Amino acid sequence: MKVAKFGGSSVANAAQFQKVAKIVMADPERKVIVVSAPGKRFKEDIKMTDMLISLAEQVKEGGDTTGPVRQIVDRYASIANELGVDSAILERIEEDLNDLIVSLHNEEPTRLLDAIKASGEDNNAKLMAAYLSQLGVEAHYVNPKEAGIFVTDEPGNARVLPESYKKIAELRNRTGVLVVPGFFGYSTEGKVITFSRGGSDITGSILAAGVKADLYENFTDVDSIYSVNPMIVPNPKEIKELTYREMRELSYAGFSVFHDEALEPVYKMGIPVCVKNTNNPQAPGTYIVAKRNHNDSPVVGIASDDGFCNIHVDKYLMNREIGFGRKLLHVLEDEGISYEHTPSGIDNISVILREHQFDEDVEKRVFGRIQRELDVDSVYVERGLALIMVVGEGMNQSVGVAAKATEAFARANVNLEMINQGSSEVSMMFGVKADGVKKAVKSLYNVYFNEMMTISYSKI
Amino acid sequence: MKVAKFGGSSVANAAQFQKVAKIVMADPERKVIVVSAPGKRFKEDIKMTDMLISLAEQVKEGGDTTGPVRQIVDRYASIANELGVDSAILERIEEDLNDLIVSLHNEEPTRLLDAIKASGEDNNAKLMAAYLSQLGVEAHYVNPKEAGIFVTDEPGNARVLPESYKKIAELRNRTGVLVVPGFFGYSTEGKVITFSRGGSDITGSILAAGVKADLYENFTDVDSIYSVNPMIVPNPKEIKELTYREMRELSYAGFSVFHDEALEPVYKMGIPVCVKNTNNPQAPGTYIVAKRNHNDSPVVGIASDDGFCNIHVDKYLMNREIGFGRKLLHVLEDEGISYEHTPSGIDNISVILREHQFDEDVEKRVFGRIQRELDVDSVYVERGLALIMVVGEGMNQSVGVAAKATEAFARANVNLEMINQGSSEVSMMFGVKADGVKKAVKSLYNVYFNEMMTISYSKI
Repeated sequence: MKVAKFGGSSVANAAQFQKVAKIVMADPERKVIVVSAPGKRFKEDIKMTDMLISLAEQVKEGGDTTGPVRQIVDRYASIANELGVDSAILERIEEDLNDLIVSLHNEEPTRLLDAIKASGEDNNAKLMAAYLSQLGVEAHYVNPKEAGIFVTDEPGNARVLPESYKKIAELRNRTGVLVVPGFFGYSTEGKVITFSRGGSDITGSILAAGVKADLYENFTDVDSIYSVNPMIVPNPKEIKELTYREMRELSYAGFSVFHDEALEPVYKMGIPVCVKNTNNPQAPGTYIVAKRNHNDSPVVGIASDDGFCNIHVDKYLMNREIGFGRKLLHVLEDEGISYEHTPSGIDNISVILREHQFDEDVEKRVFGRIQRELDVDSVYVERGLALIMVVGEGMNQSVGVAAKATEAFARANVNLEMINQGSSEVSMMFGVKADGVKKAVKSLYNVYFNEMMTISYSKI
Repeated sequence: MKVAKFGGSSVANAAQFQKVAKIVMADPERKVIVVSAPGKRFKEDIKMTDMLISLAEQVKEGGDTTGPVRQIVDRYASIANELGVDSAILERIEEDLNDLIVSLHNEEPTRLLDAIKASGEDNNAKLMAAYLSQLGVEAHYVNPKEAGIFVTDEPGNARVLPESYKKIAELRNRTGVLVVPGFFGYSTEGKVITFSRGGSDITGSILAAGVKADLYENFTDVDSIYSVNPMIVPNPKEIKELTYREMRELSYAGFSVFHDEALEPVYKMGIPVCVKNTNNPQAPGTYIVAKRNHNDSPVVGIASDDGFCNIHVDKYLMNREIGFGRKLLHVLEDEGISYEHTPSGIDNISVILREHQFDEDVEKRVFGRIQRELDVDSVYVERGLALIMVVGEGMNQSVGVAAKATEAFARANVNLEMINQGSSEVSMMFGVKADGVKKAVKSLYNVYFNEMMTISYSKI
């Protein structure tokens, strides 16, 4: 049994719906289908979700919603009409949307927004089920409440409740193809609550874990996950297989295939994930698995992200001061700042964090507290840093992986502001000034994927 | 004006006293002399300090102290007689020691031990002053109370009180050579309190800062500080000059020339330090300064130390959990464990600490708390680690320093368990399994001090 999730671009228009139907019909194991709201059809197009956000504004302000509702239903109609789906489904969508607006009349703003946004996925799932039925496939729209997706009451940031899985398991007993809208679940009080960014991936992952699927297929618009950002290195090597841990490290820094949390449910159940292309389903895609044989390729990918800064703190004999690091982190926590890493020397410690959290006002306040409460010799911030991750299972057992990396930086003439290796068995992290990041990533790609390096020595 | 400190081996016997006198007389700037207690004359010899510890035991137990006192006075006598110093000084030493024993009758054990241990330095200073006087040098024994060395009331771990410096500055007005015993000061209640390990270095450093010396000379039994441990690499390069920061990083991991705290007073005043050899005072020694020109030698030394362990903690989505690191450090602090470094990945963090603090009982308790209080996926400890520090001002601005280091590890076939660079501008730290440390240090020494490295590439 497979769970297949189709992202926004895979369900953006009639032609994409046809591809999805073909994919579903090609494999009888594809029993649970998760769909996003219709995505952009062309660069300047408006996504369904953005139309719904505008509608939510109107509802909140008590304005006239006729225009926005018309625009939304038209978008579904353009798909349904081209596919020749019975217009009864459009009437249902319009009716459901108007009922929703009325029911939300006195709802608080965050819940209202969640409920209206979620309708984008919800109505698209109804349309997909209707289309599949018309093609002669036994297909059923299944609402997340019926499926059993119960979540915490955190609008825009729902987390699945453990009791969901037992209910979801019952979906195995249903016949036909089950079409479930992505992106949202229900609180125990019956309210619609959305997941955070990438929410349809989360729905698919929860369902795959719940029905104990053999495979969770994630259909998107690329043939595979690449070993490096194609914007930096053209036509990079495709990754055939990587582990959850590798995926997690890559997605942290610049690889936006999956949202952080999306893989947690399948990770915990050990269910493999396959990233595939709706527009080229023959391509083998990339498998994300619990374990892989990494003997011949210790490095699987290189990711990078900028927008970091580094707070340096110096204090003579810091090393002998018990509790120093903990107190420093406490100051940041008090100020609501989350940090990424804390490399330390003997009498100094750095805190790497995302720069958007640390404007000049925050800097002034935090530095004041650090100076007063920790009596340091100096504290300063270095801005405009980028982090580069070299990722691969088993690289920590491979002598020479670090040597290749540092040599790549030297060859690109990019200075290393930071190296962090030692905790993760799956990655090595490097900090550089943001203007050196592209040069460095290219050079790293070359040493790991393109070249043989030979080193010789002579006495001086 | 110079302050010169002579360590235990420099004042162990009459021949050493003669060398010290020659050194003092060779430079009229050497106005303040700090002496340790007599050290070992040969490998099996008993140090004065150890004799005094036995005496303290006797005093505490109310036993007969005649034998131990005789042994101690004899040791001074063997020096005095060979130098032909008037035996009046020996009578004074014996009298002072017996008076001390009587006065300590009801003292608590830690204070008693401190007062008796301190007499080793104190009496040696009296003897040195007497010897210099006999040679026709105007020399005065100056007790630390008279000098103005006032300290916190922490037996065995005294810290200098800031008000000391004003009083010490008055020593500048005194005539002749002032001989001050190292290792101890006085509490504001007038009790003798000793410094921690390496205490005579601390006395010299405090005095140099107090009199605003032009130079603090630290006489020991080596020609210089070496760039690497001579037990690992025979005849290593001597260091001509290094900065306080470099010294501090080196002394942390295996370079035992100075105790951690000893340099703080001179560091704060910017007074240069020269490490010289009593047995070869013509050798230029090693200068420790505030700043050096590091363009031609970014790496100044390589240090290593073993006896570390690494606690690995894994938790999926740890990165998104605010306060995780702080809470983890709090558990360790509660248990009285001090840690060295905390390298982190996305969903994992390591804590490097000295292994002697983490026996199996502590491990069980700490792991239990980490599992219960932080709900982690896994926690385990890796034992038997060594840390290697590559130290040098300006290495963080030098592209390729890291590449040389990692290549050295690869060439020695030693796997890197940890790399930590990013906070200190003066060092890079590497963690390896203890059995690889010698191979790795040799290889590092070769790449930084012995060889040219050439790297070439070919397409694969």
